Amino acid sequence: MISELFPRTGLVSLVGAGPGDPDLLTIKAFKRLERADAVVHDRLIARVLLDHAPPDATRYDVGKIPGRHGAGRQTEINDLLIRLGAAGLRVVRLKGGDPFVFGRGGEEALALTEAGVSWEIIPGISSALAAPAAAGIPVTHRGYSGSVTVATGHSQTGGHADAGHDWGALARMRGTLVFLMAMENLDLIVYRLLDEGRDGREPAALVRCGTTTRQKVLTGTLGDITARARALRLQPPAVLVIGPTVALAHVL
Amino acid sequence: MISELFPRTGLVSLVGAGPGDPDLLTIKAFKRLERADAVVHDRLIARVLLDHAPPDATRYDVGKIPGRHGAGRQTEINDLLIRLGAAGLRVVRLKGGDPFVFGRGGEEALALTEAGVSWEIIPGISSALAAPAAAGIPVTHRGYSGSVTVATGHSQTGGHADAGHDWGALARMRGTLVFLMAMENLDLIVYRLLDEGRDGREPAALVRCGTTTRQKVLTGTLGDITARARALRLQPPAVLVIGPTVALAHVL
Repeated sequence: MISELFPRTGLVSLVGAGPGDPDLLTIKAFKRLERADAVVHDRLIARVLLDHAPPDATRYDVGKIPGRHGAGRQTEINDLLIRLGAAGLRVVRLKGGDPFVFGRGGEEALALTEAGVSWEIIPGISSALAAPAAAGIPVTHRGYSGSVTVATGHSQTGGHADAGHDWGALARMRGTLVFLMAMENLDLIVYRLLDEGRDGREPAALVRCGTTTRQKVLTGTLGDITARARALRLQPPAVLVIGPTVALAHVL
Repeated sequence: MISELFPRTGLVSLVGAGPGDPDLLTIKAFKRLERADAVVHDRLIARVLLDHAPPDATRYDVGKIPGRHGAGRQTEINDLLIRLGAAGLRVVRLKGGDPFVFGRGGEEALALTEAGVSWEIIPGISSALAAPAAAGIPVTHRGYSGSVTVATGHSQTGGHADAGHDWGALARMRGTLVFLMAMENLDLIVYRLLDEGRDGREPAALVRCGTTTRQKVLTGTLGDITARARALRLQPPAVLVIGPTVALAHVL
């Protein structure tokens, strides 16, 4: 066929898979999966989402690249996306949550741009907002919370665990605070906020696997949430929510 | 039929319609619309979303309740949802963005709970995160932004326009700042941040109607974004994005 003589233009779609509930995928993401030649996905993606792709689409589970962590693994993922996109394939890069909310979508987009490979972003629902919602916590509420701050609980650079935050500013924020990947550094997050003057009596919650059938919600105060999590041996992944609207979790 | 003898249990689904692109609706929201008896929607919802509901489902455009604003209108909406839900209907309350991110979903959920009407929340993609993404701005990026704060540019109580924020804390936040409904108080937002010490050279962008075919992106700095918006007569609605990753809008 004539069309075979011309290289097909590849496109890498950086797609957010949403917070866990497979039905919280967007219609746009579903359409891209349906027509994908290759799916490059994280380890924790729901199996049923991969079933949306054609049977003969190649699946790459890049959550399991052996012996690689951090920047090294990210470079390998970037190279894979470039190679598949440059080969003219329709590539779906499927990430939990939203690619631009702690999903490293920006790094992959930059690598693709530098390599001259076309890409697009298809936002997904971030667990930072959906996990509190699923626990009955509105992150904003008139008269109670006029802002929501989503912060990482992890160091992003592999260095010290403070994640480069201005903890004083975080502690002073009057709205809702949400920490993603909060379990590993829960002690530190709580300590820094209290140390900077946040009130220990403020309502706090941990939401594990929000929106999924395995969802667990633990409520308390900023002062006692760490002890409660320890007593219940709550495991990651979980988001930590702090702020006045957390009290609504009991009403709603 | 026997089943007619028993009252059907009503359910009000508080549904996020997403940021504007109709394909950014979730599959879960689509399923609820498909089986809705009644749809109670805001004024700016894309027409095509309403077409997902059955032809005989009743549509209520509550963005247009005449002669009512603010709390009075919200009370009327709450009452309508309670009445429809108590009548045993499957009600979809369709809101732009996400119901719990400045969507007043919490107020409606509280009213329904108090009235004993069942409800659920189906999160949607917030324009606070998707509009920057559509403009090529990752709200987080390793080494550049470890948090994103979403704040309202409006007063939530109808009082002074400061919206109750701690502007000093906002100005000190090292991550990305996103102001929703930013156009009406753009001068004030910029003034307060500069006054509290945020650097006027910091990259800033206004994204109007993000993810839709009418999307417009205006970039500049915190110091000059107001003048640029005025020169181009940029109209609401728009989100204001401030932070180091805004500079990536030109690269991506």
